[in-house]
Amino acid sequence: MKQISTISFIGSGNVATHLALAVKAAGFEVKDVFSLHKNHADILAAKVEARAVGSLAELQRDTDLYLLAVPDKIIDPIVRTFHYVEGIVAHTSGITPMETLQKTARYGVFYPLQTFSKEKEPDISKVPFCIEGNSSDVLQSLSDLAANLSDVVYEINSDQRKYLHLAAVLVNNYTNYLYRMAFDILDAQQMDTSLLMPLIEETFAKIREMHPDKAQTGPARRKDLPTIEKHLSLLEEFPQYKELYTLFAEQIIKKYHEQL
Amino acid sequence: MKQISTISFIGSGNVATHLALAVKAAGFEVKDVFSLHKNHADILAAKVEARAVGSLAELQRDTDLYLLAVPDKIIDPIVRTFHYVEGIVAHTSGITPMETLQKTARYGVFYPLQTFSKEKEPDISKVPFCIEGNSSDVLQSLSDLAANLSDVVYEINSDQRKYLHLAAVLVNNYTNYLYRMAFDILDAQQMDTSLLMPLIEETFAKIREMHPDKAQTGPARRKDLPTIEKHLSLLEEFPQYKELYTLFAEQIIKKYHEQL
Repeated sequence: MKQISTISFIGSGNVATHLALAVKAAGFEVKDVFSLHKNHADILAAKVEARAVGSLAELQRDTDLYLLAVPDKIIDPIVRTFHYVEGIVAHTSGITPMETLQKTARYGVFYPLQTFSKEKEPDISKVPFCIEGNSSDVLQSLSDLAANLSDVVYEINSDQRKYLHLAAVLVNNYTNYLYRMAFDILDAQQMDTSLLMPLIEETFAKIREMHPDKAQTGPARRKDLPTIEKHLSLLEEFPQYKELYTLFAEQIIKKYHEQL
Repeated sequence: MKQISTISFIGSGNVATHLALAVKAAGFEVKDVFSLHKNHADILAAKVEARAVGSLAELQRDTDLYLLAVPDKIIDPIVRTFHYVEGIVAHTSGITPMETLQKTARYGVFYPLQTFSKEKEPDISKVPFCIEGNSSDVLQSLSDLAANLSDVVYEINSDQRKYLHLAAVLVNNYTNYLYRMAFDILDAQQMDTSLLMPLIEETFAKIREMHPDKAQTGPARRKDLPTIEKHLSLLEEFPQYKELYTLFAEQIIKKYHEQL
């Protein structure tokens, strides 16, 4: 089995950027960075001493691994254009099945279960990498690469990965939206949002120690309808938030008071 | 102005327990612990070397502070029974106006903005205490007490406090429910929920560095309808979660794609 030592990136967004920086820092060579927007490719390529290319035909064909970090819907059309490569082709998507890459000979999935933003450098060593391969060789090569970046590497099949991606949306995207709702509410009162930080931290700390089923507290948990009514009356200027608040309250009441 | 040195607790639940332990540890004397369930009062009283009482009439009348940590709806009926005391009477509720205590001479609010569970000891020194008093003397006395327990003490009026309490429900109770949804989904697939921990931690870490408006990522943020459809199809066995997922997705799409 040939170890991966050279990697080209298809895509230059947040995922591509953080992964490219991580593999470069771990001693791998980044050969090409492709982006439909050549100027985006230029920026990333400069950071990792790679070559920027604006068309897939320009990709060097002797790279060990082609990592696709692009929007899900263009994975398939992109792969059709260079399925002839010898290296491994892997995507980084949570929701796209591995078999989307089956036109290539050696393919797999290299899915980092984390949220990446331009503004914040994540600690890659703590990011769980979810790996899949169409052969034991590919699986091993991708796992070895992941182990060079992170302490946490899992073999996860496409079906499990979908559920993981769904769960990630809940605990990251939707949790963040709850934060945003809270911030909007305090901002409207000219109140300091940093007041909420210890509570947000404790909410996270609790989940490490007990199942969220047990950690549930609050007005809905104790079916405190007068408090819920008061809260709803505070949300008159945020009709969308009122709707979401109501649905949470209904569901929590149902879970804890009607399904006993 | 007389400093508070003795405190009696009305209530013996999670909030009363954690506060009583904290004031005791900070060198204050806990005189009485009242609970309608005398055996609950016994348990807490034993921990803080106090006297347990099962009727309000038994409360010693020369205590500096009577702290009510009871369900909101019984604050008023309880206060009616001992409005004659000379000490300060304060409640610990997020949603109850201070004026609910106006039958007493010296009253205020001592609201810890934190979630308290039996199973987990919070770091009281990091808990924001939101203080209100019906006179500058009461305000000062309660603030001094809070400063003995915590590094974070704010003067917050009853109106602001309601909004804080609402915001706290979002970032704690409802976030916790999202965690529970995610855990239920992975549990149903016999998958390891600890895979989500780094992502949960990063979600919290991000909010310290950027406004949640900027931290928002994910399928709804980029209006990726095919991914949203796939996620909804995974939620067939959880119709309630499907409903909540849908409402979040709709609202985030609306925020980022229709209100530009």
